[in-house]
Amino acid sequence: MPAVIEPSIEQRVRASFARQPAMVTIGAECVAVRMGEVDVRVPYAPALTQQHGFIHAGIIAMVADSACGYAALSLMPAEAAVLTTEFKLNLLSPAKGDFLIASGRVVRPGRKLMVCLGEVFAHDGAARKQVALMTASMMVMQTDDTGLRD
Amino acid sequence: MPAVIEPSIEQRVRASFARQPAMVTIGAECVAVRMGEVDVRVPYAPALTQQHGFIHAGIIAMVADSACGYAALSLMPAEAAVLTTEFKLNLLSPAKGDFLIASGRVVRPGRKLMVCLGEVFAHDGAARKQVALMTASMMVMQTDDTGLRD
Amino acid sequence: MPAVIEPSIEQRVRASFARQPAMVTIGAECVAVRMGEVDVRVPYAPALTQQHGFIHAGIIAMVADSACGYAALSLMPAEAAVLTTEFKLNLLSPAKGDFLIASGRVVRPGRKLMVCLGEVFAHDGAARKQVALMTASMMVMQTDDTGLRD
Amino acid sequence: MPAVIEPSIEQRVRASFARQPAMVTIGAECVAVRMGEVDVRVPYAPALTQQHGFIHAGIIAMVADSACGYAALSLMPAEAAVLTTEFKLNLLSPAKGDFLIASGRVVRPGRKLMVCLGEVFAHDGAARKQVALMTASMMVMQTDDTGLRD
Repeated sequence: MPAVIEPSIEQRVRASFARQPAMVTIGAECVAVRMGEVDVRVPYAPALTQQHGFIHAGIIAMVADSACGYAALSLMPAEAAVLTTEFKLNLLSPAKGDFLIASGRVVRPGRKLMVCLGEVFAHDGAARKQVALMTASMMVMQTDDTGLRD
Repeated sequence: MPAVIEPSIEQRVRASFARQPAMVTIGAECVAVRMGEVDVRVPYAPALTQQHGFIHAGIIAMVADSACGYAALSLMPAEAAVLTTEFKLNLLSPAKGDFLIASGRVVRPGRKLMVCLGEVFAHDGAARKQVALMTASMMVMQTDDTGLRD
Repeated sequence: MPAVIEPSIEQRVRASFARQPAMVTIGAECVAVRMGEVDVRVPYAPALTQQHGFIHAGIIAMVADSACGYAALSLMPAEAAVLTTEFKLNLLSPAKGDFLIASGRVVRPGRKLMVCLGEVFAHDGAARKQVALMTASMMVMQTDDTGLRD
Repeated sequence: MPAVIEPSIEQRVRASFARQPAMVTIGAECVAVRMGEVDVRVPYAPALTQQHGFIHAGIIAMVADSACGYAALSLMPAEAAVLTTEFKLNLLSPAKGDFLIASGRVVRPGRKLMVCLGEVFAHDGAARKQVALMTASMMVMQTDDTGLRD
């Protein structure tokens, strides 16, 4: 799956990511797009932390969900939209360091539903440590539907 | 469980919540604390949205996780800290409206691990609609431990 | 939702349940069908236990998944079939006693996807204790599709 | 992690597996034990199926949970016991064929809690297809505790 991606598909994924104000709010960027695989990067910032100074689990969920969702979108028809129906996050280590990279990957590219695996790593200088593991379901939405869900 | 809470416990929960910069960043407040139950409120803001104008699933996870975590903390000994080990979020409807309320409740108050149920509702004028359902595991941490996890 | 159910719908649910050999293998029965709600009962048996003499977590998952799946089927069109796409189970207490009751309930009756909540209780004499909590996603399948998934 | 395993550890894992009557009931065997990795095999049998003739999702959960649990036990101290606190299963394809292999692997070997990834494959003649993906949390229990949970 991590084959070379067509420029028009990469462009579509990056354009949709750029329309997520929530990603701007937390300082997250889409740093890589391959077929069925997307990486999202978020730098450490005190504004993203919980009471112990680690990055909040919800922020980790945000970037992992976005990485998984756009990994799914990269395999969908051009007219489709993506909507998360569920995800689960296991937290493996406190999220600290210089920045996080969330890597999302499609493990089942279904016609109606795509299942993704997300892994989040904390980078601290030259060191890298996995901090979270996500599994997620992404629904393929027809954008001419009257409603986006269902 | 939703019995009257001792002022010292409510104070402990609210003080810890106030030490979460991530909650300030997204505009979330702790609006109710009962024994084993906490409500968190976040107003709709364009800065919290995804590409379709709905509140990002990761933001929903943030407030549901915080509501569940503090619900668990309210049942822990005074010297303990709380750490999320995992959560799963099912998204039920697009999150739009005036504000969200995430209600967390402990369903298993274990000595080492607490299991919580979180429900997130969107309030739009007089209407209220459930937008998400979370189940979460919270670990009871001894704060004199050298590390917070494990 | 727990309104009176039409006999034809109850019949359809019970007939499909009866076609699950796995339920016969573990001795499980469908004991109640309401609109969007189904109860499944499985008696304790040594053949269902793990190494500590409790009912195996996988058996608990089986009955909770069946209760959720048939709760969803009760709200689907007559020609539809149900397929589990994912579930999560939190184990709350060791499963022992005389029998288990798994109660499944639809919390989001979507046109393509239904989200369910399952609760499993152990009954021991007159006592009842919750042993597990499930959330599950059920896909509405058109039975004239060539394949059942997707 | 998949290093050569000490015979005494492999023996402990296999002995505990052999004390799970539920595995005998469904015909499952422990076919490989490495450090932090265990494979469980279950042959297709009509007695394990749901209403469409596929292996029941709960059976898939049983073998994936056992593979993950014993993967965790292989990394625990000799006097410890393992207890599943939660798992999530995503179903990727209908489970049919000659037999299933569930492979469990520890991704976070914590002192109190281990997080595992389980993958289940259906083997049909020479073909192999992934049918499910599990993430699970396993608690390290001290067997001299009065109770096994918590």
